[in-house]
Amino acid sequence: MGDPATTKVSVLGPLGTYTHEAAFKYFGAAAEYHEERTVTDVFHAISHKSIPFGVVPQENSIYGSVIETYDLLRADGALVCGEIILEVQHCLLVRRGTRLDQIERVISHEQALGQCSDFIQKHLPKASLVKTTSTASAAQAVVENPPNCAAICSKICATLFDGLELLYEGIQNESTNFTRFYALAGELGVPPPAISYNPLNRALLRIRGQHTGQKLSSTCLVPVLSVLHLDISRIDRRPSLESEPFHNVYFLEIQSTEAKEGDKNWAETVNEAVGRVRDAGGLADIIGLW
Amino acid sequence: MGDPATTKVSVLGPLGTYTHEAAFKYFGAAAEYHEERTVTDVFHAISHKSIPFGVVPQENSIYGSVIETYDLLRADGALVCGEIILEVQHCLLVRRGTRLDQIERVISHEQALGQCSDFIQKHLPKASLVKTTSTASAAQAVVENPPNCAAICSKICATLFDGLELLYEGIQNESTNFTRFYALAGELGVPPPAISYNPLNRALLRIRGQHTGQKLSSTCLVPVLSVLHLDISRIDRRPSLESEPFHNVYFLEIQSTEAKEGDKNWAETVNEAVGRVRDAGGLADIIGLW
Repeated sequence: MGDPATTKVSVLGPLGTYTHEAAFKYFGAAAEYHEERTVTDVFHAISHKSIPFGVVPQENSIYGSVIETYDLLRADGALVCGEIILEVQHCLLVRRGTRLDQIERVISHEQALGQCSDFIQKHLPKASLVKTTSTASAAQAVVENPPNCAAICSKICATLFDGLELLYEGIQNESTNFTRFYALAGELGVPPPAISYNPLNRALLRIRGQHTGQKLSSTCLVPVLSVLHLDISRIDRRPSLESEPFHNVYFLEIQSTEAKEGDKNWAETVNEAVGRVRDAGGLADIIGLW
Repeated sequence: MGDPATTKVSVLGPLGTYTHEAAFKYFGAAAEYHEERTVTDVFHAISHKSIPFGVVPQENSIYGSVIETYDLLRADGALVCGEIILEVQHCLLVRRGTRLDQIERVISHEQALGQCSDFIQKHLPKASLVKTTSTASAAQAVVENPPNCAAICSKICATLFDGLELLYEGIQNESTNFTRFYALAGELGVPPPAISYNPLNRALLRIRGQHTGQKLSSTCLVPVLSVLHLDISRIDRRPSLESEPFHNVYFLEIQSTEAKEGDKNWAETVNEAVGRVRDAGGLADIIGLW
């Protein structure tokens, strides 16, 4: 089980995923990394208190929000305690000796397939696209499958998995490609041990709509938003799955308007803002503070 | 080319997609349907004025927004002129005689794969998932591939494609599953001919952020939203891809607060609201009126 004082961090595995790289950047070499098969498994490890921290992808600068992460944030459980931004350079990896014209299947995480759609359209228009749970598991699949497969993943997978060869590098649609990750914890506003962090200045709110008279409405967001009095840096929408079709849950990332606000003030500021939203009839929860 | 008076409608093909079904529900039997291979091709047909109308999926009640559609709405071109809601029952189709335990690949549009993730997880946890451009093209792929493949698509595909058999019906995660479609046109606020429509009461706005002093910011949405004075029924966010990473474009669907507003009033109301947003420094465009 290792040293009980070691920080345990659950990440989307196997070794070699961008999430693992981001976690390493944030939690460092002293942390103990537990590889999970899916983003869902990372959330479960924290919710069930088996591992106190985790890292999941939140958004890519080309392909946008990671749906699986937002869908898991709909339920109570893991909370956001930090963010990590990583520059991403996708590569096309094949079994050693495979040529581009022999590739019939391209395997990767749906985000990477989406981020490299121009390359695929131009160079592999007839290939079938196969989704995997991570970019590194795509590399693993290429090792185990017939040689007509290719993986889109990070360069490091060429050294981590035997028999693979790098065919193309930097194949994403835009030359600047960044992915942003959320660090997760079981408690709110508690930074992981040994993380040097700036004063808290961000928060994630979950808003399930507003009571208008008798019924719950997700169509009247304006009164809810106008009482926040905080800068909104991101708004995301997912189906709530809780009541009638096309009822939504919104995720609002907010940030401090004052540059040098202290920790305590920011948590209080967010609490007061959420109090105003609730007074206005909004169903709001704080699900991240960092 | 058919009768020049016939309404021409571009849809995501081949015959048998839910989009085709939705288009038929809206434009009727007298319209001439042109099957396009992708959602992108539907937009292009309208932008290039080769076909005046189109239908594309916008949102599903389980899986949420259709990313491809919102990404295409980022650029000028096709505009929203109507909406169609369709109840969707996904089925698992195979080559006649194939048993569940023989299925190694599940083929479908990513939306359908997402909507049926519980069924796949439970019954086909080891199958690889292959994305296609439409549910009906997945059915076609099953006809053309080895018998270890299955398609997730509509029931009608079992009759449209020879040699296919329905193995399971209603396999989506929730028993109520609706998809909402946008009807597209080249001009704003002009309803398609022969469509009996209610007075206009909806609009789609595209907001690219706000000028705050010297720079364009997508982090200060609150001032922009607070001057709208209209009900917001949907907010969607996509990467703008136009400037620095994590700069966003927002899509706001708005609706009339008054039930019996006339056509002219609604268009004027929306124009005035967008004028206020622009006065507040917001970069806003009306990209739908219906």
